[in-house]
Amino acid sequence: MQSRVIITCAVTGNQTTPEMTPHLPITPAQIAEAALGAAEAGAAAVHIHVRDPQSGKPSMEIDHYRDAVERIRAKNQQLIINLTTGPGGRFVPSPDDPKVAAPGTTLMRPEDRVTHIALLKPDIATLDLNTMNSGKQVVINTPENVRRMAAVINAAGVKPEIELFDSGDIALCRDLIADGTLKGPLLCSVVMGVKYGFQPSPETVLYARSLLPPGTAWTAFGTGRSCFPMVAQSYLAGGHVRVGLEDAIFLEKGVLAETNAAMVAKARNIVESVGGEIATAQQAREILSLAV
Amino acid sequence: MQSRVIITCAVTGNQTTPEMTPHLPITPAQIAEAALGAAEAGAAAVHIHVRDPQSGKPSMEIDHYRDAVERIRAKNQQLIINLTTGPGGRFVPSPDDPKVAAPGTTLMRPEDRVTHIALLKPDIATLDLNTMNSGKQVVINTPENVRRMAAVINAAGVKPEIELFDSGDIALCRDLIADGTLKGPLLCSVVMGVKYGFQPSPETVLYARSLLPPGTAWTAFGTGRSCFPMVAQSYLAGGHVRVGLEDAIFLEKGVLAETNAAMVAKARNIVESVGGEIATAQQAREILSLAV
Amino acid sequence: MQSRVIITCAVTGNQTTPEMTPHLPITPAQIAEAALGAAEAGAAAVHIHVRDPQSGKPSMEIDHYRDAVERIRAKNQQLIINLTTGPGGRFVPSPDDPKVAAPGTTLMRPEDRVTHIALLKPDIATLDLNTMNSGKQVVINTPENVRRMAAVINAAGVKPEIELFDSGDIALCRDLIADGTLKGPLLCSVVMGVKYGFQPSPETVLYARSLLPPGTAWTAFGTGRSCFPMVAQSYLAGGHVRVGLEDAIFLEKGVLAETNAAMVAKARNIVESVGGEIATAQQAREILSLAV
Amino acid sequence: MQSRVIITCAVTGNQTTPEMTPHLPITPAQIAEAALGAAEAGAAAVHIHVRDPQSGKPSMEIDHYRDAVERIRAKNQQLIINLTTGPGGRFVPSPDDPKVAAPGTTLMRPEDRVTHIALLKPDIATLDLNTMNSGKQVVINTPENVRRMAAVINAAGVKPEIELFDSGDIALCRDLIADGTLKGPLLCSVVMGVKYGFQPSPETVLYARSLLPPGTAWTAFGTGRSCFPMVAQSYLAGGHVRVGLEDAIFLEKGVLAETNAAMVAKARNIVESVGGEIATAQQAREILSLAV
Repeated sequence: MQSRVIITCAVTGNQTTPEMTPHLPITPAQIAEAALGAAEAGAAAVHIHVRDPQSGKPSMEIDHYRDAVERIRAKNQQLIINLTTGPGGRFVPSPDDPKVAAPGTTLMRPEDRVTHIALLKPDIATLDLNTMNSGKQVVINTPENVRRMAAVINAAGVKPEIELFDSGDIALCRDLIADGTLKGPLLCSVVMGVKYGFQPSPETVLYARSLLPPGTAWTAFGTGRSCFPMVAQSYLAGGHVRVGLEDAIFLEKGVLAETNAAMVAKARNIVESVGGEIATAQQAREILSLAV
Repeated sequence: MQSRVIITCAVTGNQTTPEMTPHLPITPAQIAEAALGAAEAGAAAVHIHVRDPQSGKPSMEIDHYRDAVERIRAKNQQLIINLTTGPGGRFVPSPDDPKVAAPGTTLMRPEDRVTHIALLKPDIATLDLNTMNSGKQVVINTPENVRRMAAVINAAGVKPEIELFDSGDIALCRDLIADGTLKGPLLCSVVMGVKYGFQPSPETVLYARSLLPPGTAWTAFGTGRSCFPMVAQSYLAGGHVRVGLEDAIFLEKGVLAETNAAMVAKARNIVESVGGEIATAQQAREILSLAV
Repeated sequence: MQSRVIITCAVTGNQTTPEMTPHLPITPAQIAEAALGAAEAGAAAVHIHVRDPQSGKPSMEIDHYRDAVERIRAKNQQLIINLTTGPGGRFVPSPDDPKVAAPGTTLMRPEDRVTHIALLKPDIATLDLNTMNSGKQVVINTPENVRRMAAVINAAGVKPEIELFDSGDIALCRDLIADGTLKGPLLCSVVMGVKYGFQPSPETVLYARSLLPPGTAWTAFGTGRSCFPMVAQSYLAGGHVRVGLEDAIFLEKGVLAETNAAMVAKARNIVESVGGEIATAQQAREILSLAV
Repeated sequence: MQSRVIITCAVTGNQTTPEMTPHLPITPAQIAEAALGAAEAGAAAVHIHVRDPQSGKPSMEIDHYRDAVERIRAKNQQLIINLTTGPGGRFVPSPDDPKVAAPGTTLMRPEDRVTHIALLKPDIATLDLNTMNSGKQVVINTPENVRRMAAVINAAGVKPEIELFDSGDIALCRDLIADGTLKGPLLCSVVMGVKYGFQPSPETVLYARSLLPPGTAWTAFGTGRSCFPMVAQSYLAGGHVRVGLEDAIFLEKGVLAETNAAMVAKARNIVESVGGEIATAQQAREILSLAV
């Protein structure tokens, strides 16, 4: 078993909507507050997207990222801050001519998806390796464009967290190690439950784990109702854990999570019930070789 | 163990090029000859793409499909004919604006990808469920477009062979069963070795198998040098087998396969060496509930 | 996921000793009290061994079994009572001539190991299929002797719970189904952590599960510090759960469990935290096709 | 994949009987001849039991071992010679009082089971870690007695080959490493098909492999009709291979193997068909760190 378990809280994401839950943090202030609450409940790291404060829709606005980060750092210097680089990767084929982008397409130059990383230099930036169906949209991250994003992340001295949505993404991960784009030991997440990628199960966790490079620090997490079962499963298989309103909105059947902190507290309870010990932010920094 | 093992021969494909091997069948006559030779060597089914006779490049020309099919049927009425529907699904993002299609893009209306199926009514038509990176290109098969292709295949009374390139494709397959697009028992292929999808290994075969609906007839096959190892592995795990110049060009290390028949003969030898019995075309038709 | 999760509490066993924990129930009255407390905390079934009230050592005395059962039944008619048939199966080879039984040997005629079952007709009687090293002793349950014990259990109208300590035991289980000794659907336990049998891990649970006959109701449980992790793992893999002072003495690191009920409560919390619902005794009787 | 595949031929064993096949080598001369023939066909190692030349029954006679070894060494100095230490470990419980040994019991002092190893100093001696049902008999190898046998093998400078019949044996193996009885890197065999131990399947090979200490050279092999399928499976999972009349008597369905060499030739063909290269005896000595 891993000596200490890192809880990451993904506080808002971009798939959860305000219509789904009234408890979703929207403004930078709310996002920072959610992050700080998660930290108090036991999260060593927070994964952050930003939203437009008016519409609540996903945003890539650098000022929002900066505002959220500064608000967190003003109160907590240890908490690991992980910023997403996911937005800007979606393509919606037109029904009559699928090679033409339809509304909803967000695909943009890879360098434009990591501007905030170069500027804000968080501890960690995610790097999605998936090209897949995601609902009615297609997520496209070509190997070449992943390399271009990784170059910016590496140049900023930021540690990438590799997001793995299916087994082929792990094959790409290995090729990126082989060509020097990624330098080990890696930090990886196995995302389960997006349709159509890895689906949550003990088998998936063990299979995905078997494909990871030796020495990888990894987290397997599930979306929706698989969120808490996969907290247990990831820990039992040797991984770290992740929860948060990005991944699920219910604390238990029929009960909306009122805060991200409540989800972290529940994840912590699960891990501790089966014998794990939670990492503080400082311990997590040591595990992940981040600046302390 | 499966009572009888179906060998499918994929005689030409569209990724293998004449520059890679001089033995690739190009014209409809050559493709038919390859299919008939494969049948004599033990294949119960052939999987067919067509090519432009002049350039050798992949083609979607219906006349070539018709020519190949008629040449096969003139000499062999039992052999199961399986036509591809893969072409027409590739998107190449422009380097400077990835939402704009660059040269190499072949993406087209789904109905246009199955015209030959409606006209020629082969025994089987493949139905690719993958959206993924495939080399420097992106293959896009959205759930909606897969449904549109399946509608044409179903209306033609043709059995779809579901092509699964990664675990998420199997999740899509299950959703397509749930909504009635696919009717069981299914015929599925697990494709291993395309970058970036399933990679060939015993673990992959067992994991993919665990995700298939009960009662599925399935084949796991590997590309390149994993071709023959995965013949053995698929059989040992309860599956059928596939070989052919679409998947690999070498018969053994350093020795190009001179014919598809030679690859079938080798696959047959492997299966028989480990205790399997090969299905005749007629037996395969019974196993797959095809017209006899 | 299983619709309802059966918690079995193994309240005293025969490997735990009073020297290891002061909280071990010894007398029939203590054992009954422990069983009833476990039931109140959420256990639908109790697995019972008896002990000599003076020495605290394992006993096969029928009066003790009867006393314990009657005390339970006086207060709770629904709780599923599962009596062990394990004692009487140990052989200790002499150091100088290993074919001669040394002190510690308890091996006896199989019929003598199930006398209490024939007399008391509990809901369930365990049936151990293991022949293995168990510490410095050898447990011997030959196929023939298992058949003789099963004949008595079957004749009493008692449902056997098949105890599986390693993969070969499952092969024996399948042979016992084939020859009619066991009639499905079965109730099986996968015991992990005895040296030298199955060791606790997610892989072991999945592998053992893959070997069970279809339709089997099963519980995988671990001994010692694997007790609570395996509660989570068994549930996540589709199984029921078991805890109790027979299997482990600590509630958490450094904290002895003061009661069996406390262990049940903790197991219940784990299962519910990851989305499971506990079966009442009555629901468990329906799941296992026991008299209601 | 392993760089070179070691074929071991188990030429006679003690479970196969002359009644089962007329081709079983019986006398030391026949055993030596079988070993030399296997070597010519591609075996790098031979696993040897001896038999009583008159009765054909298993023997522990040192003169027979010496005779067989000398006959082999007279013609082939490179072939790896592996002598069994299995005989002397069986216990047959009496029907009426199972703690009393019945006829058929062979259990003896552990030191007496390895006398021939101390005297003849073969390259390798097997060391069985199993306590299990084996047909109607019980095989008993207690941890203590295994340690006593290992002490003699180690003192003779002979490399032990650890025989693993079920997962608990691998747990014992790990404890024997921890206490210094076994020194790595190990040579292990995973025996599949004995009732009641590991049963042959891809899952068993992968599960057993997952339990082995890192760096272990291992062979998984199957008995009876699983013999050749498990040759393929062991190779595909990264293992070496073993065949021979000890494990199976048929070359294919209905066709008795006339020689051990024929079985080796078939195994070699399987391995080479799926891309493996066979190790010479000298290469095998390097892989196993044996005297060259």
